[in-house]
Amino acid sequence: MAQSMMLLWGSGSPPCWRVMITLEEKKLQGYKHKLLSFEKEEHKSQEVLETNPRAQLPTFKHGDLIVNESCAVCLYLENRFKSQGSKLIPDSPAEQALMYQRMMEGVHLNAKLDSVAYYDFLTPEGERHDSALKRNKEALATELRLWEGYLQNVAEGSYLAGPFSLADVIFFPNVAYAFHFKLSVERYPKLAKYYSLLKDRPSIKASWPPQWFPTSNGDDALKDV
Amino acid sequence: MAQSMMLLWGSGSPPCWRVMITLEEKKLQGYKHKLLSFEKEEHKSQEVLETNPRAQLPTFKHGDLIVNESCAVCLYLENRFKSQGSKLIPDSPAEQALMYQRMMEGVHLNAKLDSVAYYDFLTPEGERHDSALKRNKEALATELRLWEGYLQNVAEGSYLAGPFSLADVIFFPNVAYAFHFKLSVERYPKLAKYYSLLKDRPSIKASWPPQWFPTSNGDDALKDV
Repeated sequence: MAQSMMLLWGSGSPPCWRVMITLEEKKLQGYKHKLLSFEKEEHKSQEVLETNPRAQLPTFKHGDLIVNESCAVCLYLENRFKSQGSKLIPDSPAEQALMYQRMMEGVHLNAKLDSVAYYDFLTPEGERHDSALKRNKEALATELRLWEGYLQNVAEGSYLAGPFSLADVIFFPNVAYAFHFKLSVERYPKLAKYYSLLKDRPSIKASWPPQWFPTSNGDDALKDV
Repeated sequence: MAQSMMLLWGSGSPPCWRVMITLEEKKLQGYKHKLLSFEKEEHKSQEVLETNPRAQLPTFKHGDLIVNESCAVCLYLENRFKSQGSKLIPDSPAEQALMYQRMMEGVHLNAKLDSVAYYDFLTPEGERHDSALKRNKEALATELRLWEGYLQNVAEGSYLAGPFSLADVIFFPNVAYAFHFKLSVERYPKLAKYYSLLKDRPSIKASWPPQWFPTSNGDDALKDV
């Protein structure tokens, strides 16, 4: 089954990583894949455009079926291979409600991290304002404190919505990204604990990004958030 | 069942509207709800904060379960009430793949519409640039042309992913928002046709927003996109 899958991915992209974690969890190792370089703009190549008109990574095919948006790929794979590998959507209504909620909050978190870590990259020179970057940092800090609160209420050894689920698949790469760019372990102890709990999970370790896209705001772009 | 549900909502908010369409489609009429005013900042009230620390609408409770993010609510309701009312996630793998893809693309479309229609509202006065608004408009036009292409390939009378689905639930309110703010019917004929196909659907008509949040970029903020 996995041999009929093809993933085009970029290293250090949380959306790409989510798909790779899901493929590992669903025991779909052996899928075809190709690492493309963001720096060389290979995500804008004809090879990507044929499958993904957005010229973005991940780009994913399963046989003739195309699903590119990362959360959509995860939902598709979990529903298509329900009884294979880890169960990534829990059965109980309460866990399911929480799972969908945290999963979607995790989707929206990306842009908030990017708005700080990649501020210069995303904003043309003449349009940059210290006040805007400061506001983005404050909004990100408020956001991350929310997650600290969520994790405060999670039972010891438990994950975002009880058992390991798509909520963690979507969220964890964002957390790893945040700590890679030097988010403070002291200011966000619950996030740091969550990171430690998951970083050696086999699916995550097996798909760990070999490198991260450098940010013009520095390798410690998140240190004072 | 519906009597144990409570929705706090704001008029003209695509995320709120999605939840209301889903409740209609799943035959969950009779849910409790309360219309709050964005202009009076009632979404920041204690009543909202008790259920939603983000101080956003929609805010949704089903018994003791809380789900607030709009796409999460729709996924939760469809999975919780699978066999009731319309089936909003198709069974066939091909339709399901396309459904999740379009649903998530629809989620990401919101911010692109807001970045034009609410540019002044979202950007403090000293940080506004004509070049930024122009770039946002171009990005939105590129995005909407993508959807024109998607709809070009849809069979006559069919919806985004075949039968009416969560993809339409998520996407349609964005389309209605775009045309409300005077997106050009001539430049986007497929979107206009899709709008006509769906605007009188009972679930959509029953939940049509009584008013839209005014934009400081004008009631025709999208006319030249």
